[in-house]
Amino acid sequence: MSRITISPRTRMTPFHESTMAAGLSDLTVYNKMVLPTSYGNLKAEYDRLINGVAIWDVSAERQVEISGPDAQACAQYLTSRDLSKQKEGQGYYVAMCDHDGRILNDPVLLKLSGGRYWFSLADSDMLHWCRAIAAEKSFDVEVREPDVSPLAVQGPKAEDLIAELFGEHVRDLRYFWFVETELDGIPLVLCRSGWSKQGGFELFLQDGSRGNELWNKIVAAGATYDIGPGAPNHVERVESGLLSWGGDTTPESNPFEAGMGRFVHTDIEADYIGKAALRRVVASGGPERLLCGLIVDVDTTHAWPLPARTPVTSNGDDVGTMSAIVYSHRLGKTIGMAQIRRDLVESHATVQIVGPDGPADATVTDLPFL
Amino acid sequence: MSRITISPRTRMTPFHESTMAAGLSDLTVYNKMVLPTSYGNLKAEYDRLINGVAIWDVSAERQVEISGPDAQACAQYLTSRDLSKQKEGQGYYVAMCDHDGRILNDPVLLKLSGGRYWFSLADSDMLHWCRAIAAEKSFDVEVREPDVSPLAVQGPKAEDLIAELFGEHVRDLRYFWFVETELDGIPLVLCRSGWSKQGGFELFLQDGSRGNELWNKIVAAGATYDIGPGAPNHVERVESGLLSWGGDTTPESNPFEAGMGRFVHTDIEADYIGKAALRRVVASGGPERLLCGLIVDVDTTHAWPLPARTPVTSNGDDVGTMSAIVYSHRLGKTIGMAQIRRDLVESHATVQIVGPDGPADATVTDLPFL
Repeated sequence: MSRITISPRTRMTPFHESTMAAGLSDLTVYNKMVLPTSYGNLKAEYDRLINGVAIWDVSAERQVEISGPDAQACAQYLTSRDLSKQKEGQGYYVAMCDHDGRILNDPVLLKLSGGRYWFSLADSDMLHWCRAIAAEKSFDVEVREPDVSPLAVQGPKAEDLIAELFGEHVRDLRYFWFVETELDGIPLVLCRSGWSKQGGFELFLQDGSRGNELWNKIVAAGATYDIGPGAPNHVERVESGLLSWGGDTTPESNPFEAGMGRFVHTDIEADYIGKAALRRVVASGGPERLLCGLIVDVDTTHAWPLPARTPVTSNGDDVGTMSAIVYSHRLGKTIGMAQIRRDLVESHATVQIVGPDGPADATVTDLPFL
Repeated sequence: MSRITISPRTRMTPFHESTMAAGLSDLTVYNKMVLPTSYGNLKAEYDRLINGVAIWDVSAERQVEISGPDAQACAQYLTSRDLSKQKEGQGYYVAMCDHDGRILNDPVLLKLSGGRYWFSLADSDMLHWCRAIAAEKSFDVEVREPDVSPLAVQGPKAEDLIAELFGEHVRDLRYFWFVETELDGIPLVLCRSGWSKQGGFELFLQDGSRGNELWNKIVAAGATYDIGPGAPNHVERVESGLLSWGGDTTPESNPFEAGMGRFVHTDIEADYIGKAALRRVVASGGPERLLCGLIVDVDTTHAWPLPARTPVTSNGDDVGTMSAIVYSHRLGKTIGMAQIRRDLVESHATVQIVGPDGPADATVTDLPFL
């Protein structure tokens, strides 16, 4: 493992002081910003996420805000999902594609009051992409990155904690719905969302100068729930089959191959970028590869750092790539995620991978595992 | 300092095995790829760059290739420098701007044989930007990221080493000019360039499977010159006044503020993105702030990690931001880089900064220092 060099080119988050005080030990760079990945005990962080409540600095999920008279038309042109029925206060999981149908990002798109939109981004620079499109298409919009930094509160005890802080009404929020609110004057958007399947909320802080204040309020209220620091958890996300754009996808992947087919609407009247290319994929019978799970035939409880996608073969033929391999604490098995030839996914075939410790058989399964 | 988490989302380089074997200790992420920053002894790496020859894995300087019938028109539309006189085999340092004249990247643009162009990038995702523009403007081009990874050989002894490997003709290469060549069958572009002012070359490897082979050949031939591993050196780059896009610039900076005014041609006939906005800057009398050097009045030889841009004041007024502060081994002084109000730059004023150890006076100077 190597140390990371931080310079002004890599942005700190509004919660940086708090994460350092909490014992931050590992991080990565995401959207040119620090993204904490561990506080030194991944198993304890996993257990806290599965059984309790954790606080995560996910500021690196940056927002691109589209506002102005053409905001809806512009947002629609930028995504392959039908936005015509989206309500204010509702988030949509969407694919942003390029003109050849390659997936560029898989954000949650929040429709705010006043006709504004936030694309809450995975790790690719959509600010410039959106500005290029808006300018060249002459949409009457403003495109900017607002001062908005999400703080996630995740785990089965998150709802009780958030209800204590914000009121019982939060229990009625449906998944990906949100309210524009505040906490003791700190402006934020409170959304039922987060990069885990353990339940919880994201607090989109709207004043970067108040990050540590917000963190401290949550930690103080969370003490009775034994809250602790954490980060998007690699084991839990594989168990839950959550897509890591740029990890599980290649630069050539289309959204069907990324498991986002149900969010791609090729029959709507509205035009959007990549529509023709995505229609061709449908017309040709669908994608050649699919995102899937693997149950890997190795008996180990050790951690598997996988620094790069690795080939998947079937009788020696290249049939895809594996992008993650972990030991699932809850399943007691070694599991992975991969993009594999569709017939092998549909038949739940046995394939071969080369893991960090050598070759092994793997059984293709549906996602999620849990 | 924290450990970095590497996943398939962060790309390894073709030289990764070699850099690990050479003792890589510190790295950062640049264009979603690993960029080595140190092998554990920054002072030795500095001395090697100033007095000898160093090998740097700068694969993270990714290329965007534009090819096809409209390649020149497209490349011109993407940059604010007049490309009409650029020759094949010549590189140009250029600014890429958005429609409001903000600088998005400061690549070296290589004009290759067959009318192809490579934008050799700083740390921002111009592949998507270029694809958005090419598609919406209907340029007849292909835009892609080719399998090209630069390896830099830098320092005063680099020319002798490169001449030994490639022949005496390399001594005649002018700055930013290049040849398309090979080394024992390894295809590459050899360019007189690099992110230092100590002289040297960049070898743009065109076959990622042969990275360690290329590294080993250079290191073997370099043994007589006492070659060793290194990385773009923070102290040397400040002494030399080399721009770090995204560090020394803010998201709102225009190329004049970034010290790139002489590469911005607002009077040419060709249209390009941001031209109208840049003309308005000129018409209004020029930029409000300028990139400059600071000689900081503190007596220390200690290292100054500066994780974020920090305010510069003059009699209590906010007049700019400092983006780097280092102890210059050659000057025996503490120096920095900043963007500061133009009148204070032009008058070489004394300003105030808050460094990691507290407030200090600083004298504004021209760049480079050396």
